[in-house]
Amino acid sequence: MPDPETELTLRSDVTVRLVKSSANDADVVWAARVSTAGEDSLDELEKDPERSGGLINYLMRDRHGSPFEHNSMTFFVQAPIFVFREFMRHRIGFSYNEESGRYKELEPVFYVPGGDRKLVQEGRPGKYKMVEGTPEQHWLVLDTMAKAYRDAYEAYQEMLAEGVAREVARSVLPVGLFSSMYVTCNARSLMHFLGLRTTHPDAKVPSFPQREIEMVAEQMEAAWAEKMPITYAAFNKNGRVAP
Amino acid sequence: MPDPETELTLRSDVTVRLVKSSANDADVVWAARVSTAGEDSLDELEKDPERSGGLINYLMRDRHGSPFEHNSMTFFVQAPIFVFREFMRHRIGFSYNEESGRYKELEPVFYVPGGDRKLVQEGRPGKYKMVEGTPEQHWLVLDTMAKAYRDAYEAYQEMLAEGVAREVARSVLPVGLFSSMYVTCNARSLMHFLGLRTTHPDAKVPSFPQREIEMVAEQMEAAWAEKMPITYAAFNKNGRVAP
Amino acid sequence: MPDPETELTLRSDVTVRLVKSSANDADVVWAARVSTAGEDSLDELEKDPERSGGLINYLMRDRHGSPFEHNSMTFFVQAPIFVFREFMRHRIGFSYNEESGRYKELEPVFYVPGGDRKLVQEGRPGKYKMVEGTPEQHWLVLDTMAKAYRDAYEAYQEMLAEGVAREVARSVLPVGLFSSMYVTCNARSLMHFLGLRTTHPDAKVPSFPQREIEMVAEQMEAAWAEKMPITYAAFNKNGRVAP
Amino acid sequence: MPDPETELTLRSDVTVRLVKSSANDADVVWAARVSTAGEDSLDELEKDPERSGGLINYLMRDRHGSPFEHNSMTFFVQAPIFVFREFMRHRIGFSYNEESGRYKELEPVFYVPGGDRKLVQEGRPGKYKMVEGTPEQHWLVLDTMAKAYRDAYEAYQEMLAEGVAREVARSVLPVGLFSSMYVTCNARSLMHFLGLRTTHPDAKVPSFPQREIEMVAEQMEAAWAEKMPITYAAFNKNGRVAP
Repeated sequence: MPDPETELTLRSDVTVRLVKSSANDADVVWAARVSTAGEDSLDELEKDPERSGGLINYLMRDRHGSPFEHNSMTFFVQAPIFVFREFMRHRIGFSYNEESGRYKELEPVFYVPGGDRKLVQEGRPGKYKMVEGTPEQHWLVLDTMAKAYRDAYEAYQEMLAEGVAREVARSVLPVGLFSSMYVTCNARSLMHFLGLRTTHPDAKVPSFPQREIEMVAEQMEAAWAEKMPITYAAFNKNGRVAP
Repeated sequence: MPDPETELTLRSDVTVRLVKSSANDADVVWAARVSTAGEDSLDELEKDPERSGGLINYLMRDRHGSPFEHNSMTFFVQAPIFVFREFMRHRIGFSYNEESGRYKELEPVFYVPGGDRKLVQEGRPGKYKMVEGTPEQHWLVLDTMAKAYRDAYEAYQEMLAEGVAREVARSVLPVGLFSSMYVTCNARSLMHFLGLRTTHPDAKVPSFPQREIEMVAEQMEAAWAEKMPITYAAFNKNGRVAP
Repeated sequence: MPDPETELTLRSDVTVRLVKSSANDADVVWAARVSTAGEDSLDELEKDPERSGGLINYLMRDRHGSPFEHNSMTFFVQAPIFVFREFMRHRIGFSYNEESGRYKELEPVFYVPGGDRKLVQEGRPGKYKMVEGTPEQHWLVLDTMAKAYRDAYEAYQEMLAEGVAREVARSVLPVGLFSSMYVTCNARSLMHFLGLRTTHPDAKVPSFPQREIEMVAEQMEAAWAEKMPITYAAFNKNGRVAP
Repeated sequence: MPDPETELTLRSDVTVRLVKSSANDADVVWAARVSTAGEDSLDELEKDPERSGGLINYLMRDRHGSPFEHNSMTFFVQAPIFVFREFMRHRIGFSYNEESGRYKELEPVFYVPGGDRKLVQEGRPGKYKMVEGTPEQHWLVLDTMAKAYRDAYEAYQEMLAEGVAREVARSVLPVGLFSSMYVTCNARSLMHFLGLRTTHPDAKVPSFPQREIEMVAEQMEAAWAEKMPITYAAFNKNGRVAP
């Protein structure tokens, strides 16, 4: 019998933590310079940051992408399953390992929209705009989700208690359930991700990410910007189109 | 208010349909022959199927993978979200387009295990074995799932009825919900998939796929085997390890 | 002893032949429509080509790339090694099988620039412009190349005649030697290739391909344009930036 | 007029230098553990190296490949063009930047086989075996290559001296010319490379790499083995088949 005391955790935020990285602007410079100068001039270039900035900007503008691949960042991410479903569509230059509902019992942590999450969708397909929900809508969503999550998790627990395999019982768990993963990418693959999964005033190509994946993307962006500030500035300056 | 009459569809099967393909054994032969003979000898080779079979078997055994990539198969697949979650971890040589819960209202079609689905997991991690469930367990699963699915779908409908955006309301929908996608792959990427997502007496490397993705994989395998019978035989003969 | 009569073939063109394809505009439409409409409305859409054109243009403009992947084209290409060296840098969505200098004796077919090939490079790195050569320069190039090719091929033949392995002897062969390959791609990967390897008045992003790979790209482009004319028009209309 | 004094450098070795890395065995452990235990138990695992070794061996044996991707190694490589031609066929999990014959004048550094390089190929296609050359063959190869390289480089210089663009003049340069590149990969992609490009007594699948790319592969292997000794041992123990 399921525990009537099961405590659900309801979260409106996501966790993104840069676990490790080997990524800085100089990596772009030496990778690009091998084309024209061999490796001998590296020291000189490192003494000339301005020229390096110009080179990075030129590579971004003319879309020479490969020099942005010789670096690596690994993030630990906790977010709802529906976010991971979108995230894992990014195939190129991304490596994933995620918590498994086959190998472990999943924890009762669920997503509910925060007070500032726009709840209402207006316009026709391809032109949707999200607008504020009313207080009544916010209340309805919180109440309905909390109840639905509790019902689903109790059904899951009930099946587990009767000896049903985790991989079978999990069918009833909602896509609002939190999961955890490690994801490794490089600056080029991250820029592709950011171009599609954020909105930004500097973006030349419009994108309409769901807010929850954008919350993940914004935290990844902030961590990356600290590691590779010159590359990050060049990305924004050139319309946030990945090279 | 949600329609109290909402009819749920409960399915224990999956849909896999080969929508189009450009794939046959000769594609492997001419791709491999360009290495050694130029393209002039193609006609001759096509007249000599036995030698072609030997070549395909040699490529498979010694793991020359690239000649198996010059072909293409597109499948339409309907399966639960938890199957698609595993499927889309296959990044290389796979293209996907899936139904979107942001752009359309999702239909109430849900997965329940069939009568022959083993329900109970025994053993320790990495060594799991699935065994038969009791009739009581089968009954419990069906009953619990049907109720949980109905509750979840009604919660979804209730939020939609009050104007909540589809992308928000879907949070409560379970991973047992059916989705639809087109997936395009080639023989090489499909063999990788089959090696991991099926169990088979000829397999040299053990794999422990969840039964539901194996149901999809088996139907893809059958369709592929008809298109490329010599390649398929070589795959089995060489331990079902993708080249 | 090498045959003093060895006949060299000097070519100024490249061979590109679409060997097989499974590619048309409707493939893009049904792949995209699965997101919003399920597959039921396909017939209706096929009856409405104008709406299909609008959809394809929208996908291209807003950079929804995945619907352009459910198709396949295989080309047979003959071009100099220095072209293949650039070509094979394209990793994503490209499959290759090439003639092998380890497994066969390579034929004496070599590249020389045609009369309209610009021979002189002006300007500084990143801003190069090619300009016409003088008749003297053309004559020098033809003469020098023909002689260098003959010397190299005779050295190759001499080593082979003395029993040296092909894989060793080929070291002396120049990158102007012709090779043959099959290459398979889809419309999305091809658009990336064309964006970088052609120059075109509609291109929003500048590119500076070497003329010889552009000759290959132009022929691939022409073959693709016939198979997927609506997609091709949308590519040009949207600045020839791959989605 | 070309400089009659042009000094050619003849090399029989290759350069491989691990420029930077973020790669150790613990990366595999935490990536795998997220499936079953969440991240909380990391400290515990780090205290138990034996259990970690068992986990890594299990992942390798059952071919769970993704945990081996959350690491990164960048190598600087100098080797002949014919080696780079084979190297760059490795598309998945490899990033490249190479010296460009369009942007710089290439240096006269060329490959000649060392005294211990087997020069003679015996047997039929697919079953080749390399055997020792005679002293006469060694002498012939050195002499013929040195002369051919000099002729080719002088032709290159002559065209450059008359104002012909580097991208045109390089057509005559042989595939035995040395080039330089940076290449970034992860342990999983490196294991695929090593499986195909080395011979080794522990290998379960036969491979027939050309000796020169094997020389590069061996040095990459040695550098990787130092960084991830437990993973490396598991690779060898499980037949050197990449997971």
